[in-house]
This record gives sequence, C-alpha cells and structure tokens, in this order.
Amino acid sequence: MKQIQVGLIGFGTVGSGTAQVLFEQAESIKKRTGISIVLKKVADIAIDSLPDQLVGTKLTRDAGEIINDPEIDIVIELIGGTTLAKKFILAAIEQGKHVVTANKALLSEHGMEIFRAAAKKNVEVGFEASVGGGIPLIKTVKEGLVANKILAIMGIMNGTANYILTQMTDHGTPFEKVLKEAQKKGYAEADPTYDVEGIDTAHKLVILMTLAFGMDVHLKDIICEGISRIEPIDIQFAKEFGYRIKLLAISRNHGDHIEASVHPTMVPEKHMLATVNGAYNGFYFTGDMVENVLLYGKGAGKMPTGSAVAADVVDIARNIVNGAINRVPSLSYLQEHIAPLPITPTEELRCPYYFRFTTLDKPGVLSKISGILGKYDISIESVIQKGREKKSKVPIVMRTYEAQEAAVKKALDEINALDTTMAQTVKIRILADEGK
Amino acid sequence: MKQIQVGLIGFGTVGSGTAQVLFEQAESIKKRTGISIVLKKVADIAIDSLPDQLVGTKLTRDAGEIINDPEIDIVIELIGGTTLAKKFILAAIEQGKHVVTANKALLSEHGMEIFRAAAKKNVEVGFEASVGGGIPLIKTVKEGLVANKILAIMGIMNGTANYILTQMTDHGTPFEKVLKEAQKKGYAEADPTYDVEGIDTAHKLVILMTLAFGMDVHLKDIICEGISRIEPIDIQFAKEFGYRIKLLAISRNHGDHIEASVHPTMVPEKHMLATVNGAYNGFYFTGDMVENVLLYGKGAGKMPTGSAVAADVVDIARNIVNGAINRVPSLSYLQEHIAPLPITPTEELRCPYYFRFTTLDKPGVLSKISGILGKYDISIESVIQKGREKKSKVPIVMRTYEAQEAAVKKALDEINALDTTMAQTVKIRILADEGK
Repeated sequence: MKQIQVGLIGFGTVGSGTAQVLFEQAESIKKRTGISIVLKKVADIAIDSLPDQLVGTKLTRDAGEIINDPEIDIVIELIGGTTLAKKFILAAIEQGKHVVTANKALLSEHGMEIFRAAAKKNVEVGFEASVGGGIPLIKTVKEGLVANKILAIMGIMNGTANYILTQMTDHGTPFEKVLKEAQKKGYAEADPTYDVEGIDTAHKLVILMTLAFGMDVHLKDIICEGISRIEPIDIQFAKEFGYRIKLLAISRNHGDHIEASVHPTMVPEKHMLATVNGAYNGFYFTGDMVENVLLYGKGAGKMPTGSAVAADVVDIARNIVNGAINRVPSLSYLQEHIAPLPITPTEELRCPYYFRFTTLDKPGVLSKISGILGKYDISIESVIQKGREKKSKVPIVMRTYEAQEAAVKKALDEINALDTTMAQTVKIRILADEGK
Repeated sequence: MKQIQVGLIGFGTVGSGTAQVLFEQAESIKKRTGISIVLKKVADIAIDSLPDQLVGTKLTRDAGEIINDPEIDIVIELIGGTTLAKKFILAAIEQGKHVVTANKALLSEHGMEIFRAAAKKNVEVGFEASVGGGIPLIKTVKEGLVANKILAIMGIMNGTANYILTQMTDHGTPFEKVLKEAQKKGYAEADPTYDVEGIDTAHKLVILMTLAFGMDVHLKDIICEGISRIEPIDIQFAKEFGYRIKLLAISRNHGDHIEASVHPTMVPEKHMLATVNGAYNGFYFTGDMVENVLLYGKGAGKMPTGSAVAADVVDIARNIVNGAINRVPSLSYLQEHIAPLPITPTEELRCPYYFRFTTLDKPGVLSKISGILGKYDISIESVIQKGREKKSKVPIVMRTYEAQEAAVKKALDEINALDTTMAQTVKIRILADEGK
C-alpha cells in the first residue's frame, strides 16, 4: 500500500484533534483511498508528550525537524498567528512540501505571497479548515459549484458571535452579560474583539471571495461592523418585524463591481440563515445555475476542524499517488486569472434599513423625522411607536424600503442633530427578502 | 489548451440544461481548469434541431454515433429509465468512455453491474446529479467527509413530496387537492407514485448508503412509506406538539447493523430539516468527527441539475488531463471494501410515535387504549383530547416515548379491533430530538 508521511506543527486544540482524526480514521481512509497516511512527527514547544494512541509518532520542539525531513510530504501548520506560521509555511514550501493550514488570518493577509511561492515549487496548499470548521465548503466552491458564476455569498461565519446573538435573542440578555458567560464557558476568547467585531468573519469572507470571484481582495476592502452595540430592544423589535439579527458576511457580484461587507443584519425569519443558531455556521451561496445552496455545520471545534484538515491531507495524498499535483488550483482559478476587482463604494450600497430613534415625547417629532427621511429619498415601510410611557424619552422604530447608504448617513446625521433627538439613532441593515 | 470532447444522450429538460451550462460556463471553466470542454454531439430521437447557441454541436438520432466516436471522452446519459439507458451506459463503458448520469433509478437498481464494468475498463462514472439536483453532496460524502465514519444520513430528498407537504402545512389543504394543483403547475408528474410514495427518495437513499457506509444495498432493503395518507388534521396536531411533518429518508449506522427507512416523519420544529420547505431538499449527515452537516438547495430543475452534471464532467476532465483516472473511487470506497451489511429488521426499529385514534365518545375509552399501550411497554408522553363535539366520533391524539415498531404494531392491531375504535389508527413516526 502506498504510504504518505505527514508532519504536524502545533499540537493545540485543532492540532491534537487532527492527530486524533488521522489516527482513528486511518483504516477507513485506507479503504477509501488505498493510501496509508502516517503522522510521522509532531512539533510543539509547549507539550512534553503525545497521547498514548499516537504510537510511532515522534514529538519534537523543532519545526525544522519536520520541514527538513525528506520523508515528509505534507506539513500541517496549526500554530496560528501570522509571523512564525508564515515562516514555517514558506520554509516548508521551499523544501517542496505540500501544506495544509487552518490559518485564516494568515491566508487573508499574506495569502497571495504563500500561493505564489507554492505555485513556483508546484506544491499544494490546502485550507478547508480555515473557513467553516468541518463544513466542506471550500471544496464545494472550488469543485462542486465549478460550473457556476457565483452571484452572492452570504454567511454566518463566526460561531462565537452567533452564539452570543442567539443567547441574546432567546433570553433577552444584554450583550455584555452574554459575552461574560460565553467567556466563562470557553465559547469566547478573553479578548473577543476578532469574533464580536466581525474581523474573523471578514478574514473568512476574503478567502471565499477569492475562490468565488477569482479576486485578489484584502481585509481593508471589507466594510466591517460588529455586534457589540446590538441591544436586546432591537432584537425584540426585529422579532416584531419578522426578523432575526445575525452577524452576516455579504458579498454580491454586480458584474463590474463586487459588494463586500460584514455587519449585523436583520434576516427574514423564514430565510434559512435565520434558523442557523448557537455555535453553528451557515454559508449561503447563490450561483447563476444552481440557484441557492446552504451549507451548515459546526464552524469550529477540535474534531470538526480536525476533520477538515484531514480531508485536505487525503486530497493532497490522492494527488501525490496519482501524480496529479494541483489538479484543482489552490485558489479555484488559475493564478493568471486572479485579479483585483472594483469594490462597491460604501456610499453606494443599498438595502432596507431598520432605525431606532430615541426622541423627546413631543408632538411633531415623527413628522420632522419622516420629513428628513423623505428629503433623502428614504421611504418608510412601517413604523412602530409604542404607547407613551411616563418617561419623556420614547423609541420610534422604523423599517424602510431599500435606501442608499450615503443618503441614510446624511439623513441620520441631520436627525441626530435635532433638539428632540435624545440619543444616537440605531441603524441596522435588513436583508431584502429575495425568496429563499 | 487541452480539450475534452463530450457527447450527450438525451436532450430533455436536464439534457438541454446541461448543454446550456456547458456552453455558458465554458469560459469560466477554462479560467479555473485550463481545459476546454466541448460538447461535440447530442443524440435525441425527439427533437429536430438544437438551440442556436450550440454552434458546432452535431445533433444525431443515433446514440451509437456518440458511443463509437473515438474523439469523445465522456458520455453523458440523460434519457432516464432503466433499459435503454443501461444499454447505452454499458456500451459507452465498453468503448472506454467515462460516463456521467443523473439516473438514480438505474444506479440504485443496477449500479453494481455498471460500476463493476467501469472498474474493469478503468473509466469513471459520475452521478452527482442523481441525488439532490445541484447540491454537491455526492462529492461532499466522498471527499469532504472522507475522514469521518458517517453515523447517520437524514434527508428531505424529494422536492415534489416536500412541496406538497409544505402546501398542506401552510394552507391546511388536503393531499389530493394539493397534488392536483401541483400537477397543473408541472411540479408533480401525471403519475406521482414515485415521488409521493417515497420510491424516488428510497432510490436516493440507496445511493447515499453505498457511499457513506461502503454498503451493497438494494431498494427492497429500505422500508418505504409515502405521504398520500397524511391528513391536514395530523399536520395541525403535529404543529401543536411542535413538529413539522416531512418525508424523511433515514439511515443510521448501528455498527453491526444499518437502519434504513423512508417515511413521513414528525420533525422537531427547531431542527434544521423542519425549515426545509417547498421544492427544496435538505441532506443532513452526522459524522463521528464533523458532527452534523446540512446541505440544502434545489433538488431538481433544469439548470441546478445541469450544474451538477457539468461539475462531474469537469471533475472527470481534470482527471483525464492529469492522468489520474479514478483518483476517487466512484462509490467512495475501493470496490473490494463494498459489501452487504445487515439491515435492522423493521420490527426492531425504535422511535417515538404519534397516534391518532378515532373512537366513540364513551367513558373508559382512553383508559382502555392506554392499558393496551402499557401492556406493550409503550409509554405515553402526552395526550390531546379535544373538547367533545356533537358528533359521536372523537380524535384522541398521543405522543409516545421511544417504542419498538413490533410492539406498536401489536398494540395498534389490538386497539383497532376494539368496538369503540371507529377508524384505522393513524401512526406517524417522530424524529427524536437529538439536539441540532
């Protein structure tokens, strides 16, 4: 039986999960591929021993022992970060080794450099685990949907943010409190910025846009807003309007320009993405031929992510034994066809909006607000003004028809400057109901 | 640029869709693969000309002109049926051609014969389009989830049946009426038996079980019940209990035996499969590593199915130009590892049940029924007995805890024989809420 030897750098959560998957599935992988995949070495500076089941696998503190081992064909990088990881990956490529990584930050920031180096040495870089954990969506975009022009990508790509929003929705708990609980339970990091401010989601969107549109795109091109300012009251009003608030990544192909943003979004409750709850992820692709496809699953976690890393290893192993390296280009398109494409300017984005105005409870306020909105061509679809309370501040909540971001900005600036406006107006974008 | 020539037999809905996909996506496929895919010939006995856009494609009435054309590498069979289609496919294989088909009936009935013939001639058989239309789920099972032992497959695999159930659920319309409307709109065939009685779903389950479990399985092994006896009243009670009724294919890997059935099922409303509505399909896989993954999309239709056929053509074309034929075994496992596995006997299946008893409105009836259920170890989880109407017949509706099929059969036989039972008891299986 053909044997492919693998080295693993980084034995943290995903690293140890990957080792376990490769070990436990070894027999089944042989039955499917006729290939024996052997984890020859693990490099990690923080552990003293490997689990007992990894008989025959050598532990080292020196990643170089893997990178320079002529018997190792595939190097798995799972240390994370963008400095050492980049160094190790480039060194492995230089040695003619194929690479598998789950490092979305690295790929979205330095991907082109890495993929160019790989192309030069004719090796592969697998990164299924970098987006959507165990959900095989990279393969789906690159191969399953190969006969489609992708028109749109929409997704719930961060389990932590989705967990927090789901808890807020189910229990009416404020953001800060849910975050603290999530941190206690280990669902959120001590510094949750990447997850809750949408940066992690934007990293993933960059990768998917490259694959879907053949586009050289950068993190700075993505409009990015997080969920930390979402309040239970907005979730409640969203429900009344028939929406769920989700942190969505959205990219649409408009032909001559590509829209790309990450922000809290009111999703119609009958849309499949509205039903993706808790730590789950959902990726919703629209192709010109296939129409809508959703992939749903655990977007993180030791074993699901390990499953994706192992699938990449098997994929590359099949190519090695068949002499078919780079049978599918790493970035879906041949490198010469990957180019920057114009990004839709923020001001030109259009969608329906939700506004929550906090105003003095005085006659004429609603008329003034609607007058300003009208001036900027923003049409109101419905209004909720709850029965007066004793307090002098009242919320006025509105859903608009599709409006332009620039016009909305101007209108809200004007409304926020009114004497009767008591707090910054809350603005949440709405996903237009394009059917399911 | 490398060129791969393709012949297409059958220019009906899916055939013409496939031709359109191959034509419209040709440039984009070149940018992704470096391969020019050329539709050289179309064979169909029912048409006189091809659409104008198919410049350079030759129309013939003789499938042999494709099968015997030495320049054609890949033959696409889209005539359906199991007689001629089989003959053409085997003849194409004999000529050393790769085959792509959407023919689930053929594959689930004569698959092993076809795959053995293909193995002998070292050619590939692609069949992504046979299950789930455009959803790339065959590739997902064979490759994306390669590092998983699949524990369970559950799915809504027939768009017609799901459309009918959704209409019944949304509007309370009886089955017969919805079916007639669906036939008028072209959503259901003149003879809807295959779709509504679960046979089409069972065909698809056979294919998925082979891929997931490496199992040689036959249609007759699948317990199969359709939706034609579902009444709006049961859908209504299902809602009250928090369920949606769906036609589910279910197969679970119990290690030493495999459960396989197709039947109307009450799905907890928070389960992702409960939210798959209308003509959409949903495939829910549980892997030992990846946990739950759902794939959702259009399970039929001209362009979505064409997209899947074209993806198979591209996949095989990549293998041809890379000299990597059968890089992934057609049936996921190497042929020597595909074997029959024991099927769980019907009587031993276990699940919670919904019963609707139609009884005389007399004292003691409920007690008699619950007594019989108790005798067979069937525990009642909840009962709905609606306020008495003027009529003497009343429905008593029950949800049980998990019970054994054999015990349920005996208990219902006994209850149906009671003097106070006025109609056959309705029994619907419930999907145990295993989390999401």
